[in-house]
Amino acid sequence: MTDGIHDNRALDFGQWAQQVQSATETALAQCLPAAHLPPERLHQAMRYAVLGGGKRVRALLAHAAGELCGAEKSKVTRAASAVELIHAYSLVHDDMPCMDDDDLRRGKPSCHKEFDEATALLVGDALQSLAFDVLTTPGLHSNPHQQLQMTHLLAQASGSRGMAGGQAIDLESVGLALTQEQLEFMHLRKTGALIRAAVLLGAWCSDKHTHADADNSALFATPVFSALDHYAKHIGLAFQVIDDILDSEADTATLGKTSGKDKEANKPTYVTILGVTRARALAAELHDHAVQPIVELNNAGGNIGVRLLQIADYIMQRAY
Amino acid sequence: MTDGIHDNRALDFGQWAQQVQSATETALAQCLPAAHLPPERLHQAMRYAVLGGGKRVRALLAHAAGELCGAEKSKVTRAASAVELIHAYSLVHDDMPCMDDDDLRRGKPSCHKEFDEATALLVGDALQSLAFDVLTTPGLHSNPHQQLQMTHLLAQASGSRGMAGGQAIDLESVGLALTQEQLEFMHLRKTGALIRAAVLLGAWCSDKHTHADADNSALFATPVFSALDHYAKHIGLAFQVIDDILDSEADTATLGKTSGKDKEANKPTYVTILGVTRARALAAELHDHAVQPIVELNNAGGNIGVRLLQIADYIMQRAY
Repeated sequence: MTDGIHDNRALDFGQWAQQVQSATETALAQCLPAAHLPPERLHQAMRYAVLGGGKRVRALLAHAAGELCGAEKSKVTRAASAVELIHAYSLVHDDMPCMDDDDLRRGKPSCHKEFDEATALLVGDALQSLAFDVLTTPGLHSNPHQQLQMTHLLAQASGSRGMAGGQAIDLESVGLALTQEQLEFMHLRKTGALIRAAVLLGAWCSDKHTHADADNSALFATPVFSALDHYAKHIGLAFQVIDDILDSEADTATLGKTSGKDKEANKPTYVTILGVTRARALAAELHDHAVQPIVELNNAGGNIGVRLLQIADYIMQRAY
Repeated sequence: MTDGIHDNRALDFGQWAQQVQSATETALAQCLPAAHLPPERLHQAMRYAVLGGGKRVRALLAHAAGELCGAEKSKVTRAASAVELIHAYSLVHDDMPCMDDDDLRRGKPSCHKEFDEATALLVGDALQSLAFDVLTTPGLHSNPHQQLQMTHLLAQASGSRGMAGGQAIDLESVGLALTQEQLEFMHLRKTGALIRAAVLLGAWCSDKHTHADADNSALFATPVFSALDHYAKHIGLAFQVIDDILDSEADTATLGKTSGKDKEANKPTYVTILGVTRARALAAELHDHAVQPIVELNNAGGNIGVRLLQIADYIMQRAY
């Protein structure tokens, strides 16, 4: 994979996605400690939990946003790795018996089944640290202030007001009849915060959008970032609606994780609240809303948002 | 507490420590999300796990090193809060049933007993994120490059080659006859890495030791940092030896956590390997070795290392 910018517009989406997935896998394999380094079992388990699977949706989003902003591919790959490490840690912890108690992940035994609970707990903990390790490696961005802001964003997206908080709301919601608004509040945190981080971090890898001042707000003020933020929010929700539909309809073998878990756990989902038909309509509506400002950017010239549009379509069509 | 530098040398150690502990508590209470913000139960549990207890040894070390380097007290307090958040998260996860299974912490029910296991898992996860959130807040250091390096250090100290890795080795060592060298290898990671981070982060808060270049090694190259690194390594080990002695000798009420846990769990400790008498001698030796370069700095003028020497003595004399 070369490091040129926009050198791959000729690729169809499948080829492009495969390139990104392959680059992500390589980067993750490199940043994870080698399995022979002590503590060996922990490092083996970390590699088991992260490598060799997953759709890498967050990495695709980071690269799509990075291309839109003209970011260097190698830098986006590193930032995307940090996001994928956070995602992988959350899956390991979510699967544990005290949480969702799931034995299957990406078609393999989940981490605490393949290893043990204590190891899975430490795997998640160490993967979170590694994400911040990767994102703070000197030189990821030419402007250390912006790199610091990127790390700050990932920390906030992961924490109690972001992903971990969404997970807590999810646990508290078992057996409750949530409104659609409450469900949205949860998902904007549980999955939405990290999806937003993936999109914005990919964009912020660009040197063109550097702000040397310490004013946080400047980073959020440009029309491009507003468009990306809008896209990320709505595509994240669409992703979740589709996830709920798949959980209710697909079988375990297709999903690579146990299907029907939400219903079994008596968790409110878009399907339990709206039914499948209205959930499908909501996903379509969220999709259209998500892509609107990206289509406008595209029309302004250069077709620079094409990958974001393709990912949006991919999310709508995925089967697992 | 004023923000002046070295304005408190007249205080005796107890008064100084109390000032630092109080400032740390205030800073932690401020950076933790309010208990009324959703998800309320998670935020309540995070505050329960962090506030109102602990010796704050890591904060004391950060401030002592910060004073030696002429750092602003308010900045050290924030950096120290990040370290204490990592420490608090590790205690919450360590106490869980799949790890050390301890019901008591700081004289109170441990987090998973007061709340539940799923909440405790998320509390630890969210506290780790919060530590990086705090440490990457704009303006903690005037030089964003140095702040980025500080965050990088904390990430490495927390991860699989640091604290989480030490914990994994600890789990693997149950029932094994470790050599003293293997025990040291474990403790340099399990507790040592974070103690080292506390000392170095306190020092790096100083504007005097700013390095604008991207060369990591420059931060480690000065004689003062070498002295601090040496001190941190040996005082961390001494702390652990004393911990092992206390675990074997003190009662549960004094410790505020269950005593005799190591023996019960068949874990190798300095006491099981060396016996109490030789363990005490080792602690004294580590102490003397730790303070040697600090005494030299002190003698060179200004008594700037006095708090580090006092903490070293405090660690040797503590009863819990």
